[in-house]
Amino acid sequence: MTRAWAAGLDMGGTNIRCAAVSASGGDVILMEHGPSHASRQAAAVAENIAAQLTHLLDTARRRGLGSPRAIGVAVPGPLNVYSGTVMQAPHVGAWRGYPLRSNLEALIGRMVVVENDANAWALGECWRGAARGRRDVVLLTLGTGVGGGLIVGGKLVHGRSGMAGELGHVTVDPDGPRCDCGSHGCLESYASASGLRGLVEQRLGLSPGAPLPPQIVDSEKNFSVRGLSAQARRGDKLALEAFATAGYYLGIAIASFLNIFNPELVVIGGGVAGAIPYMRKTMMTQVRERAFTTIASQAKIVRAALGPRGGVVGAAYAALHPPTRS
Amino acid sequence: MTRAWAAGLDMGGTNIRCAAVSASGGDVILMEHGPSHASRQAAAVAENIAAQLTHLLDTARRRGLGSPRAIGVAVPGPLNVYSGTVMQAPHVGAWRGYPLRSNLEALIGRMVVVENDANAWALGECWRGAARGRRDVVLLTLGTGVGGGLIVGGKLVHGRSGMAGELGHVTVDPDGPRCDCGSHGCLESYASASGLRGLVEQRLGLSPGAPLPPQIVDSEKNFSVRGLSAQARRGDKLALEAFATAGYYLGIAIASFLNIFNPELVVIGGGVAGAIPYMRKTMMTQVRERAFTTIASQAKIVRAALGPRGGVVGAAYAALHPPTRS
Repeated sequence: MTRAWAAGLDMGGTNIRCAAVSASGGDVILMEHGPSHASRQAAAVAENIAAQLTHLLDTARRRGLGSPRAIGVAVPGPLNVYSGTVMQAPHVGAWRGYPLRSNLEALIGRMVVVENDANAWALGECWRGAARGRRDVVLLTLGTGVGGGLIVGGKLVHGRSGMAGELGHVTVDPDGPRCDCGSHGCLESYASASGLRGLVEQRLGLSPGAPLPPQIVDSEKNFSVRGLSAQARRGDKLALEAFATAGYYLGIAIASFLNIFNPELVVIGGGVAGAIPYMRKTMMTQVRERAFTTIASQAKIVRAALGPRGGVVGAAYAALHPPTRS
Repeated sequence: MTRAWAAGLDMGGTNIRCAAVSASGGDVILMEHGPSHASRQAAAVAENIAAQLTHLLDTARRRGLGSPRAIGVAVPGPLNVYSGTVMQAPHVGAWRGYPLRSNLEALIGRMVVVENDANAWALGECWRGAARGRRDVVLLTLGTGVGGGLIVGGKLVHGRSGMAGELGHVTVDPDGPRCDCGSHGCLESYASASGLRGLVEQRLGLSPGAPLPPQIVDSEKNFSVRGLSAQARRGDKLALEAFATAGYYLGIAIASFLNIFNPELVVIGGGVAGAIPYMRKTMMTQVRERAFTTIASQAKIVRAALGPRGGVVGAAYAALHPPTRS
């Protein structure tokens, strides 16, 4: 007995997740992992994605699942969802105006839907996660950067070319630090792993990229939000201050999103979301001070439910409900 | 020969406009004016609106136009568009959680649609104005305060209870001046008549409400944006600086709206929009510095086309296309 399913692939900076997802309920039937090789040439990165998809399709066929009804690929960074062109991807330097969809379709000989990873996650949370059945949802992904996905009236907001939802790049402090996007004082400059690293460096008087204290780096000497959280748990002042500042700006941004969207739900996901306990106090103070009381009282702020599965489940949903020009 | 029409009423802080608007093309067939008596008791303000509507309906009948197909009322401030309850209206102090729709319906014996005035204006601009045929539009009204209306995929964004689109109350500077909404550093604290007055007072070292120089007040000694514009035209440094600051923050907000919505069009209306020539330089610098280049290149920033008719045309449109819970 086979059941209808879609393939969903989530392209991260380091790893790729690739899954067979049931079309009816969004269950992950089969999950595979692989490296994303994001530093390779543009075409080689796409060939690697195509190989991962082909592998999943082969495994599924061998297990008697048959062919997928649709294939969706979630990638970081703004893209034109209609043409399938990736404008710029933070972890894939070679992708600048790269026609990912058409190249993937040529490689695997099937139609592919390409979606921004935070948008896909928002779709996934509405389908299977914390926002199930909700119609007006703001999703924030706090990871290396800050991504966003907007659901208005039950539909993903794409905007003119599918680049809407760049919620990490609203200004929360006009005089704030430089952001990777070229602006400064973006939400991402504070409430992301790179933002927190910057806050720590600033407090320690370190130049960007200088070696950090051993408690807050991982085995490869990279800044670790988990390490900073552990320090906060121990009551370390530096860690608590960094999280308090990130929470302050996160609260400012959420208050603006509340006044803009009057949502039912603000869903927060991503690796930095685990540190929300250390950001909550300053965050909620700003939400209370800045959002209209009636609007704030109608919205819950909750953690994302899907975790690492969010991208693949959402990519599968996007494939099953391909975007149409509004 | 009669043609189908709707009644649209626009409730301002001082005046009411009330019009018969053709259902097919949004033409204003008949327009009446009256005082809004906004400082009266809550019920008396509503009775005055009902009297204006009744007067319009009588005039229309006498002129052989027959009855309207629908009646729409645009009011300032956040409201629950589904229940027709006005949460708080900046110029109608007595309306706090006031059930305007049901009371108007009881007074005139007909169904009424109540909509936020900036939302109505956005609908009007898409129907008949600068955004005709556009599907993704951000409208900003720069008046005494700053209002907003959002069109996403051709539909007005209402959010959970119809209070979405409070674009004047996004934070553009966390340490900015107090805003009437209770927050501080809102867009409205800069790019509105009240914001500009505050900027002038600050530069002159005046306490809020103190007498202003005669060049920038009207015949009733109230602050006049037109007067400040005339000063800017003469090269007055104070006026040019105030507008440059307002434009700076307006540009910051517009850049955020671009990154959030990826719109086709940003439409700017209201009395302060006439001073855009004095704000444009600082505004556009911030838009260029802060919005994603691809997104900014896809959006035009234009003046609203409907002017004072925006509210009544939009209220009529809202009445003809009543909001449904998404």
